[in-house]
Parts: sequence; structure tokens; C-alpha cells
Amino acid sequence: MTDRRFPLRLDLKRGTVDMSHGAGGRATAQLIAEVFQAALDNGLLAQGNDQALFSPPAGRLVMSTDGHVISPLFFPGGDIGCLSVHGTINDVAMAGARPLYLSAGFIIEEGFPLDDLVRIVQSMGEAAKAAGVPIVTGDTKVVERGKGDGVFITTTGIGVVPDGIQISGDLARPGDAILVSGSIGDHGVSILSKRENLGFATEIHSDTAALHDLVAAMVASVPEIHCLRDPTRGGLATTLNELAFQSGVGMQIREECIPIKAEVSAACELLGLDPLYVANEGKLIAICPADRAEHLLATMRAHPLGSESAIIGAVVEDDLHFVQMETGFGGSRIVDWLAGEQLPRIC
Amino acid sequence: MTDRRFPLRLDLKRGTVDMSHGAGGRATAQLIAEVFQAALDNGLLAQGNDQALFSPPAGRLVMSTDGHVISPLFFPGGDIGCLSVHGTINDVAMAGARPLYLSAGFIIEEGFPLDDLVRIVQSMGEAAKAAGVPIVTGDTKVVERGKGDGVFITTTGIGVVPDGIQISGDLARPGDAILVSGSIGDHGVSILSKRENLGFATEIHSDTAALHDLVAAMVASVPEIHCLRDPTRGGLATTLNELAFQSGVGMQIREECIPIKAEVSAACELLGLDPLYVANEGKLIAICPADRAEHLLATMRAHPLGSESAIIGAVVEDDLHFVQMETGFGGSRIVDWLAGEQLPRIC
Repeated sequence: MTDRRFPLRLDLKRGTVDMSHGAGGRATAQLIAEVFQAALDNGLLAQGNDQALFSPPAGRLVMSTDGHVISPLFFPGGDIGCLSVHGTINDVAMAGARPLYLSAGFIIEEGFPLDDLVRIVQSMGEAAKAAGVPIVTGDTKVVERGKGDGVFITTTGIGVVPDGIQISGDLARPGDAILVSGSIGDHGVSILSKRENLGFATEIHSDTAALHDLVAAMVASVPEIHCLRDPTRGGLATTLNELAFQSGVGMQIREECIPIKAEVSAACELLGLDPLYVANEGKLIAICPADRAEHLLATMRAHPLGSESAIIGAVVEDDLHFVQMETGFGGSRIVDWLAGEQLPRIC
Repeated sequence: MTDRRFPLRLDLKRGTVDMSHGAGGRATAQLIAEVFQAALDNGLLAQGNDQALFSPPAGRLVMSTDGHVISPLFFPGGDIGCLSVHGTINDVAMAGARPLYLSAGFIIEEGFPLDDLVRIVQSMGEAAKAAGVPIVTGDTKVVERGKGDGVFITTTGIGVVPDGIQISGDLARPGDAILVSGSIGDHGVSILSKRENLGFATEIHSDTAALHDLVAAMVASVPEIHCLRDPTRGGLATTLNELAFQSGVGMQIREECIPIKAEVSAACELLGLDPLYVANEGKLIAICPADRAEHLLATMRAHPLGSESAIIGAVVEDDLHFVQMETGFGGSRIVDWLAGEQLPRIC
């Protein structure tokens, strides 16, 4: 159907975003129709209002937001589009919640190729569809060349928490077991190798993935889970420190139990990175009562996104809230917060 | 209380944001604690998780998101902080909804003064508090100098729609009355005069304001309202065209009925702008059955944010969905969509 508003269709192959696409008039409407609605097609978005209307199930909801400024925009295993869907779905899921809806706000730099924008938005649409979590409302702004960097995407999600589930970063208790859902460092190493054109013999792929289905299986099987968190920026080490501080406890982990791929380990050694601080985008940390840990581990391993799960340590009493690691050589060291920037713009 | 994580407090007077504040480690945690939590203090944000947990009233919810890239960041009558709160509250309210909660995602350019960031976040906190709509979760990213422009803020809001209210852009019907809640063009002219250092004798202030309380009075008094929309980017003209297109109707408005301040009119003439296309941030358009229009007008005028409300025209049948305006000289002209960019980065 032709739309009298747009006598000429956008040139999605050779065109670029210009300032008029952010001005709120006809050009904005055309960008929304021919790029965003085309790729994110769903009934709620098609309402065409400045907000989406829906009736969530009664009960406790969670809301989470995440800005994505990753560079480069396309990387082995994903792109900023699917990452921005997975990232917020995961933040919602880490409350034990079932994600319901997403919003997306785009800040696009003038001159950005429409072709790249279409690829990114299609990747978002596919990720949202695969996850069963539609993007129901959005916004587009354009900034002048040199005032942005390609595209930034801020997604926000809401989800519903099943009755009886109480998961929060302040609920870790001495004696609890600490689990991780798979190998660490894949995402950060993938980005860095792409950014630096390192060309490793084995290409390392980002682990970007939506974890809500894994979480649903986990909370159904072990509703007593105390904490869930995805170790993104700052990596496993920083996330454990956050949880230790928030819960007022210490943690004791064992290096040999932490899953890490041989090629990621090798790349980290080459680059002088500590994999404990490297970002992940498809992994989670779970803390649960010790007597439920083996059952939780079995549930996680039975899920495709948790097949390499491991118990990596235990929560201990410590008024200073330290995270300590027993190293492979039988020693012990304090695993502190990430102090500065290890890898900028990793997500 | 001193926090062992941060032995030295941030220098909020002379310090700047650096890349480490976006890396997710200790510096990020300190920025969140000493800037964001300090200014946005509320119980839900203090949960300290990557998501906020709450129990909304049962019923229909709406969700809306808006990115804010306004330049300059500070302008007569407001700043990007309060604007980002008002903008999303208004998008939620335009469904007739009562806004409940906001999230905020910050994308900050390396080198941005902490002093300015504190002013902006305090302004957000004050706007959120005045509106009774807390900012319950957030995210902070930092991009390298020259890859952003000071700060961009994406806010997302959710709200609950009262039973019996059905407001949507596709519900305008021939015969309906069109109302506007006050003078148009104030925001856009304020930004432009500041940007261009025009120094008018009378400083023109942005009308940035949260309209949810006005909307609550309107839907309580006239639940039959068909459409509500805030004429931001693209101004009154573009918003009327959106509604006409969405509802499959035409619109007939009268120039002499449209409220506009003398100084805004003069500034527009000087700058070669058509005030119909200039952005507003504290005004709304309402469309309702003709026989309820006078009652709705009286309700709007009784509210401080609607005291200059006016009935500006009527919805008509028109298969081409034109917006036509009877001019002051007795003629008539088509008021089309904003075609290109009139004022970039106005919100």
C-alpha cells in the first residue's frame, strides 16, 4: 500500500540518517514506518501512540533499563541490536521475573548508514521474537555528526515476578553456594579482538543471549534462590563484590572451579587481562542455600544456556565484605572491585 | 558514614566524568552512590539491584520512552534533567494514565563536569518529587570525548489507566472538538533564543511541565475524551497531522483561536519560524465529542497548567486527512506535516 505521506520510499541500501529524521515530522514518521515498524512488527507497537497499552498479570513487577554504547556495533556473535534486547531481558530476569515488554530509545548520529540501521533493528526484532518479549514502544533522536557515535540504544523492560520468589542482591547468607552458568570472559574478549583486529586462529564469539528461559527453569526448580545477577561490565569479580557488599558478607571462590574457555584464557594472557574482570552477556551468577546447590546445578546444566554451569564457591562471614579466591597454586588472594576502566564501551 | 569502597569522595565541584565511571567497577559504583542516589533518593532505587521491584495497581498499564538530546543542556525555564522527567510523564499521561514509575539511562561524554551532572540529576530529582513519580532504576554509560555531547538522558515511564478511559490517536471522529491547553511555541523559541544568544528584551521561558495532574482532572471530568497528545517535536501542526492520519479524518482549525504569546509570535517572525511547527513541552491537545467540549474547556481552565486553554477547531471528514486552517485574513490554507528539520535537538 502506498502511503500518501511518503511519496518516495527511503533508500535503505545507500541512504543515510540525516537531521530531519530526528525532527519529529514527516521524515521521522517515515523512518519509523519503513525501518522500525517493518522490523519490530507487533500489535502493541502498531497502536501508533506515544505509549503502548497492555494489561500485565496482577502481582509484583520489575522494571530495568540499560544503555548500550558498544563499539564496534557489529562483533562476532552479535551486534548492538540483539545485545540491547538480551541485556535488558537479563536484567529483568535477574529478579526471577518473566520479562513481558521492552521499549527502545535510539540516539543516532547524522550520516549513519540506513543499511546498518536496518541490520541492527532487524537483529533486535529477531532477538525479541526469539525471546517472546516484544518491543512495544520506542523513540528516535538524531544528533549532528561528531556528537554521537553511530547509534546508542537504551532499552527498558518490565517483567512479572512469580509468587513466592524473593531474589535480591542483599539476600546472600553465610553458607550459601555460589554458582555460575558457564564460561566467563567470552563477550569482552570477542569485542576486544574485533576492535584490535587481533585475528586469533579461533574466532571467539560473544556469549550474548537472553537468559530468562534458563532463569524460569531455575526458579521453578529451586524457588529458594537468594541472588541472581549477570556479570556484565566489570565481570565476575565486580559482580561478586557488589553482591558481597550489598548482602554484608564475604565470598570464597576457587579458581579451578571457574569455567573459562582455553582460547579466552590464552587471549587474556596475551592481552594482559584478568578474565575475572572481563564482561559477559549471556552468563549469570546464582547464590542459593548450600543444600539446594546440587539440585540447582543439575537444573542449570540441563538447559542449553547453562550446560557448563559450576559451583564456584561459598558465601562466608566477613565484616569487610571481601571476595577471596583460592588460586590454582594453593594460595589465596583478594579479588577486589575493578578499580578503573579495563575495557571501555564493552556493552 | 564512610564507605570502605570509596576512601576519597568525588570532587563534585571541580571533577569531571572519566571513562572509569562507565566501566562498571568501583568508580561507577561511586558515581551512582554520590551523584545519582544522593539526588534521586527513594526506597525503590535504594534496593540497589539492576532492576526495581514494585506492585502496581491491577489493570491496564502503559509504557513510554523518550530520549533527550537537547542542546543547550540548560535553558530559560529548565534543563535536560527536568525536561527528561516531564517528557516521559507526559507521554504516559497522554493515554489518560496516572504515571507510576520512571527509569533513567544516562550516556555521558568523557570530561563532562561533575558539577553540571549534579545540577542535572538534582533537577530530575526535584521534578520527579514534585510530580510524585519516582525514578526507581537507572543506568550510566560513558563514551569517549567527541563521541557524545555532554549528556543524553533516556527516560521510560509506566502508568496505570483508570477504568473506563479509552484514549488513543485513532479515536478522533468527525464533529469532535479540538482543544489546546495553552500558548504554543514557548519551548522551541526559548531554546533557539538561548542557542543563538538572541537576548530578547523579554526572556522567553520554556513551558516544560508535567501534565499528568491536568490530565487526571480532565479524564475525571470528561471520561469521553477521545485523543490526547503533547505537541513536542514538530509542534501543533505535526501532531494534528499525526492524529488526523491515525484516525482517518481531517481537521479544520482557526488561526485566531490558537493561543500564542506576543513575544513568541514576534520572535518567530524575526527568526522566520512558523509557530505551528515549534516544539512545546508543557502543552497538550485534546479531542472530545463536541457536546463535552465546553465542560472540558472549563475543567482545563480551572487548572494552573491549562488556564489559557482554548477550543481551536473541529474534526471533519476528509479522505485525504488534511489539516486545514482558516487564517486571520479569512482565507484557508493546508497545514502540512513538518517536512524537514526546523529546529534540531529541541528535546
